[in-house]
Amino acid sequence: MSNALFRRVAIIGFGLIGSSLGRAIKQHGLAGTLVAIDRDAPSRDEIALLKLADEVTGDLAAGVADADLVVLATPVSTYAELGRAIAPLLKPGCIVSDVGSVKQLVLEDLAPALPPHVHLVPGHPIAGTERSGPGAGFASLFEGRWCILTPAPGTDRAAVAAVNALWHAIGSDVVEMDAEHHDKVLAITSHLPHLIAYTIVGTAVDLEEDIKSEVVKFSASGFRDFTRIAASDPTMWRDIFLNNREAVLEMLQRLTEDLFALQRAIRWGEGDFLFERFTRARAIRRSVIEAKQA
Amino acid sequence: MSNALFRRVAIIGFGLIGSSLGRAIKQHGLAGTLVAIDRDAPSRDEIALLKLADEVTGDLAAGVADADLVVLATPVSTYAELGRAIAPLLKPGCIVSDVGSVKQLVLEDLAPALPPHVHLVPGHPIAGTERSGPGAGFASLFEGRWCILTPAPGTDRAAVAAVNALWHAIGSDVVEMDAEHHDKVLAITSHLPHLIAYTIVGTAVDLEEDIKSEVVKFSASGFRDFTRIAASDPTMWRDIFLNNREAVLEMLQRLTEDLFALQRAIRWGEGDFLFERFTRARAIRRSVIEAKQA
Ligand SMILES: NC(=O)c1ccc[n+]([C@@H]2O[C@H](COP(=O)([O-])OP(=O)(O)OC[C@H]3O[C@@H](n4cnc5c(N)ncnc54)[C@H](OP(=O)(O)O)[C@@H]3O)[C@@H](O)[C@H]2O)c1
Ligand SMILES: NC(=O)c1ccc[n+]([C@@H]2O[C@H](COP(=O)([O-])OP(=O)(O)OC[C@H]3O[C@@H](n4cnc5c(N)ncnc54)[C@H](OP(=O)(O)O)[C@@H]3O)[C@@H](O)[C@H]2O)c1
Repeated sequence: MSNALFRRVAIIGFGLIGSSLGRAIKQHGLAGTLVAIDRDAPSRDEIALLKLADEVTGDLAAGVADADLVVLATPVSTYAELGRAIAPLLKPGCIVSDVGSVKQLVLEDLAPALPPHVHLVPGHPIAGTERSGPGAGFASLFEGRWCILTPAPGTDRAAVAAVNALWHAIGSDVVEMDAEHHDKVLAITSHLPHLIAYTIVGTAVDLEEDIKSEVVKFSASGFRDFTRIAASDPTMWRDIFLNNREAVLEMLQRLTEDLFALQRAIRWGEGDFLFERFTRARAIRRSVIEAKQA
Repeated sequence: MSNALFRRVAIIGFGLIGSSLGRAIKQHGLAGTLVAIDRDAPSRDEIALLKLADEVTGDLAAGVADADLVVLATPVSTYAELGRAIAPLLKPGCIVSDVGSVKQLVLEDLAPALPPHVHLVPGHPIAGTERSGPGAGFASLFEGRWCILTPAPGTDRAAVAAVNALWHAIGSDVVEMDAEHHDKVLAITSHLPHLIAYTIVGTAVDLEEDIKSEVVKFSASGFRDFTRIAASDPTMWRDIFLNNREAVLEMLQRLTEDLFALQRAIRWGEGDFLFERFTRARAIRRSVIEAKQA
C-alpha cells in the first residue's frame, strides 16, 4: 500500500475511539497490517464480522509483537498495568501512543513502565460521542477535529512526526502541547461540563416522583443537552476525574464562586448584574463559531 | 378560510416565538386576520417584507381593537405595563394569552391589569432556539413539542379549549398545569441548565489569556454545547431568573449540595461513588429518548 505510514499497527481496546481510528487507518491505507486487540470475545467477533482489522486477537503478545506503532485506546486507569504487560513484548524503535483524555498521567503511569528502546508519543483526539464499543465507531470521527500530542521534552522527533502524520492523514489538525497545560485546558472545556451535566441530571433523578416524570417529559430546551452529555461512559469519566484531580478541583472552585455570585444576584433581584454576566457569556459563542468548533 | 379558529388574532412582539406562532397560524389558516404588533420600526419593515402578517403595526390600539385573541410574545418583564396599556382596548369575550417562560408571574402581573370581561389563558410552548427577532422564526418550531397552558382555576373552559385547539392545530401536544407547578418543573429542566451554562462560559471568559484562547479552540466535547445554550437572549433570561426566583434558588441549592458531594469524591479519590452517580445519571438519557424529547 502506497499510503502506508507504518508496516504494522496494533490498537489495544477497539471501542468507540480505537475502532474509529482503526477504520480511518484502513480507509486511508495507512498501515500495512492493522491489528485489533480486544480482551472481550463478543467484541472481537463483531470486529471480525465488520472486517475492521486485518488481525483480531485477545492476546497482547501476538498483537504487539513486531508492531511499529502500538496505540492504547482503553480507559486511562488501565495504562500502568498494560504498560507493564506490553513492555517486554515491544521491538526496539516501536512507537507507543494513546488516545486518553488526560495526559499527565501518561507520563506518570505509562512512561516508567516502558523500556528505553521505544518512543512514547501520547495523543488525545478532541472528538467523540457519548456511545461506546466497536459498533459505535466511524471513520470520519476525527475529520476537521483537533488532535493534541503531548510528548515529553526530549522525545525522538521522528517518532513525534510519524504520529503527527498519521492523525493528519485521517483529517485531524494536530498540535503539540505540554501535558500539564493540556490537562488544564481540558478541565474547563470538557471535564467540568461533563461533571456539571452529571450533577444536574443526578439532581433531577433525586426529585420527588411527581416532578421527576415531568422533567423527562419537558426536557427540551436545556436539560435535554445535559442528559446527552451525561450519557457518556461512567468508567471513562471516573478515570478522568480521578486522574485530573488538581485541574478539575481548581476550575470547580472558580465555577462555584461564579455560581454563588449569580445566585446572590437572583436572590437580591440584581437584574443589571445578571444581564451583564449573560451578555459577556453570550459573546463567547461567536468566537466558538469563528473557530469552526460549533 | 375554513380552518380559521379565530376571526382576528393579534400577536404583540413579533420576535422568535411571536413570529414563529404567526407563521404557523398563517400556514394553517387559523386566523381570518393576523395582526403583528411590534414597537420596532425595522422589525415591522422586515415583517411586512416577509409577508408574515396581514396587518403590521406599532400601535397597540389599532392592533388589539376588535381582536378575538391577543397573544403577548414579549419579555415577561413587560407584562404589567402592556396589560395596563391594552386593558381598555380589549373587546368583551377577548381571549388574552402569552408564550412567556415563567407562569406564576402572569397571574400576578398580567391578570390584575385586565378587565373582567376578557379571558386570560397563559401558555408556554416548550420550544425555541438561542436566536432572536422576526427573521429567526419558522413555522414548524412547535411541531411535536409540548405547549403548557396554566389558566387560573375558574377560567372559562371554552376559552381554554380555544387556545388548546390553536396549539394543537400547529402540531403541539397541549397539557394543562398549575402555574406554580410549571415554574418548579421548568426551574430544573430549563432555568437551571441555562444558569449553569452562563456560569461556566463566564468562568472561562475570566481565565488567563493563554488558556482562554485555547478554550475556544478546543471547545468540542462539552463546552461547545454550553456556549450554544449561553448564546440565548440576556434580557429574556434576566427576566426569567428574577421572576422564578424561589424555584430557581431551591433547585440551585440542591444542585450545589450534589456538586459538593462529587467535588469531595474527586478530592478523596472515591471512584466508586463517582461511578455510581454517573451510572444513575446516564440512565435518565434513555427515558428522555423514550419520551421522544431527544
Ligand atoms: N469517548 C470519547 O468521547 C473520547 C474522546 C477522546 C478520547 N477518549 C479516550 O479514549 C479511550 C477509550 O474510550 P472509548 O470512548 O473508545 O471507550 P469504549 O468504547 O468503552 O472502548 C474502551 C475499550 O477499552 C477496552 N477496555 C476496557 N477496560 C479494559 C481493561 N481493563 N483492559 C483492557 N481493555 C479494556 C474495552 O474493551 P471491553 O469491551 O472488554 O470493555 C474497549 O475495547 C479512553 O482512554 C478515553 O479517555 C474518549
Ligand atoms: N426563545 C425561547 O427559547 C423561548 C421559548 C419559549 C418561550 N419564550 C418566551 O417568548 C417570549 C419572547 O421571546 P423571544 O425568544 O421570541 O424573544 P425575541 O425574539 O427577542 O422577541 C421579543 C419581542 O418582544 C419585543 N419587545 C421587547 N421588549 C419590549 C417592550 N418593552 N415592549 C414591547 N415589546 C417588546 C421585541 O421587540 P423589539 O425588537 O423592539 O425588541 C420582540 O418583538 C419571552 O417571554 C420568552 O420568555 C422564549
